[in-house]
Amino acid sequence: MRRTPATLPPGSTLGIVGGGQLGRMISQAASRLGFDVVILEPEPDSPAGRVSARQITAAYDDPDALGELGRLCPVVTFEFENVPAASLERLAAAGARVAPGPRALAVAQDRMEEKTFLNGAGAPTVDFVAVDDLSDLQHGLERLGLPAVLKTRREGYDGKGQAWIRSADDIAPAFEAMAGRPAVLEAAAPFVRELSVIAARSDDGRTAVYPLGENVHSGGVLAVTTAPALASDAVQRRARAIAEAVLEGLDYVGVVGIELFDLSADDGEAVLLVNEIAPRVHNTGHWTQDGCVCDQFEQHVRAVMGWPLGPTEAHARVEMTNLLGDAVEQWRDLAAKDDVRLHLYGKAEARPGRKMAHVNRVLGPI
Amino acid sequence: MRRTPATLPPGSTLGIVGGGQLGRMISQAASRLGFDVVILEPEPDSPAGRVSARQITAAYDDPDALGELGRLCPVVTFEFENVPAASLERLAAAGARVAPGPRALAVAQDRMEEKTFLNGAGAPTVDFVAVDDLSDLQHGLERLGLPAVLKTRREGYDGKGQAWIRSADDIAPAFEAMAGRPAVLEAAAPFVRELSVIAARSDDGRTAVYPLGENVHSGGVLAVTTAPALASDAVQRRARAIAEAVLEGLDYVGVVGIELFDLSADDGEAVLLVNEIAPRVHNTGHWTQDGCVCDQFEQHVRAVMGWPLGPTEAHARVEMTNLLGDAVEQWRDLAAKDDVRLHLYGKAEARPGRKMAHVNRVLGPI
Repeated sequence: MRRTPATLPPGSTLGIVGGGQLGRMISQAASRLGFDVVILEPEPDSPAGRVSARQITAAYDDPDALGELGRLCPVVTFEFENVPAASLERLAAAGARVAPGPRALAVAQDRMEEKTFLNGAGAPTVDFVAVDDLSDLQHGLERLGLPAVLKTRREGYDGKGQAWIRSADDIAPAFEAMAGRPAVLEAAAPFVRELSVIAARSDDGRTAVYPLGENVHSGGVLAVTTAPALASDAVQRRARAIAEAVLEGLDYVGVVGIELFDLSADDGEAVLLVNEIAPRVHNTGHWTQDGCVCDQFEQHVRAVMGWPLGPTEAHARVEMTNLLGDAVEQWRDLAAKDDVRLHLYGKAEARPGRKMAHVNRVLGPI
Repeated sequence: MRRTPATLPPGSTLGIVGGGQLGRMISQAASRLGFDVVILEPEPDSPAGRVSARQITAAYDDPDALGELGRLCPVVTFEFENVPAASLERLAAAGARVAPGPRALAVAQDRMEEKTFLNGAGAPTVDFVAVDDLSDLQHGLERLGLPAVLKTRREGYDGKGQAWIRSADDIAPAFEAMAGRPAVLEAAAPFVRELSVIAARSDDGRTAVYPLGENVHSGGVLAVTTAPALASDAVQRRARAIAEAVLEGLDYVGVVGIELFDLSADDGEAVLLVNEIAPRVHNTGHWTQDGCVCDQFEQHVRAVMGWPLGPTEAHARVEMTNLLGDAVEQWRDLAAKDDVRLHLYGKAEARPGRKMAHVNRVLGPI
């Protein structure tokens, strides 16, 4: 079988599974470094496909398409974590190096596995209980107390597949909302704020960690990230230690996004819990496009193509705002502002809640 | 006939004639603003085509291809100035708005017309004489003195189609080098340094001027630009006045690159002569990618798509270096440096002197 060299020179081809905005921005970063990009995506004419050398239009688990992608591309990565394990095996069988690797994906695809891994790696989470039936749920609530949140183990994102339980009346509806899928009950975290850390690891084990972002969600979906977040040295050190533990523990290659609950008291020690990890570039890292010399997308490409990691220092403080659905119409006003940089995803239809664009407002130099 | 609206919303399609690195970087900027891009380029699988929604692979003067491009794209621009006038007419006939317009192209395609326009617009050049035969050349040399430089009126770039005349022995070879093509003899400019100014004008007549770049050429080809150039207020004001005179005089829409000879004495008034104008994004403006919130590529897209112009202030001082031919192999070392940003063009073959990539080194904040 073909062996992929450790370092891929410019002119090599990168495969990306997924054709949305994250794939689009990875592709744009890859082309800046002289790489060609092939997208695998069932939706024709996708946001990523339209800025890439080629799109293979097929399902993510189509065996022929995966074989072709693996043959065309010495390295394949992905823009979302719910890629079937069998797809990764087919890519590897066709000769591609898949990064991040199957273990990172498997851990991130299942909230039980994820939380178990994190706690084992020294990256604590809220208390949690596996819920397969109503009896599990009732016992879990006795242990964790109220409020608590019930989540499907697999395939939830942006607040989907989640139900809060604040009183006994919520128990039955929450359980029904899982529709029989395996679930996990999580204790509520009494957090002060939500932070996130974007970090990368190269094939040779080097790591690079960006400054913290502070995030505001609305309706379960990220609304605003401000970065670098104002944070004590202790919080920054703790976040870096968590990021490095996650990267090492998963033998990770590429960029990871780690969402954190900050429970630190103003004058006390740093208390950070991991909410979840995303084995990919992350919405809370979009600020790096206009705050850093090497943004998270270029960093990811560097890591998976075996290049040295780029610098992670911020040269500007940035406020990133998502434009969901109709909010994308604000482009007219935003385009006239001197301190913002627009990033539009090329999606035709502005469905309610759909991520259409983001805007980075440069707050000032560091 | 279809009318192109003044402002094109995201999702609209931009046509670019030419598939090289300038088209590639215009396309990348356009996709960041949510536009689709179609490239017209005879070479299949071109640098620009590989990052665009579509490439029409045909000659720049292919009537069918131009008709198709004009039908697909409400706005068409170009990455080089030697587009035949008949091609522009075909695009317009198919319903496209062509920006910059035919007059800017016609002026930039002929050194005699260009210099005549510039002097008439209050943007002085060196003295010059049209040379159609050997007698013109001899009379021209009597008037302008030695040294002087003989250039083809049309189609020269990067030092091609030029011959210096430093002594009587050079006269015959220089004339022969023109191979019977109409030429222009130019006096030598006793310049202190070479500067350039990148500027833009929108459809409604607003202008935006970037800070000056200071350029070093080698063998007739740009080697390094450092920007913002250190320059007196008088020099900066003079450059801005020249840029605005050129933009107004050509009723220009888009980004223009203006190369200047700086003849100013250290403590005297500003003396700038225009060397040449390029009716397009320009190699000496690549520094804006890492020195400005809105780079020259986004600025060009904004102007031709009828958006408000973006800010032109620099937030960082940048040294841009071209990587020609084999020099692109330096990517390995450059990728490991924290203060540089690589921009590779995705060209397969590193022919000697071919522009393969450039690198922006961030010298520090402004």
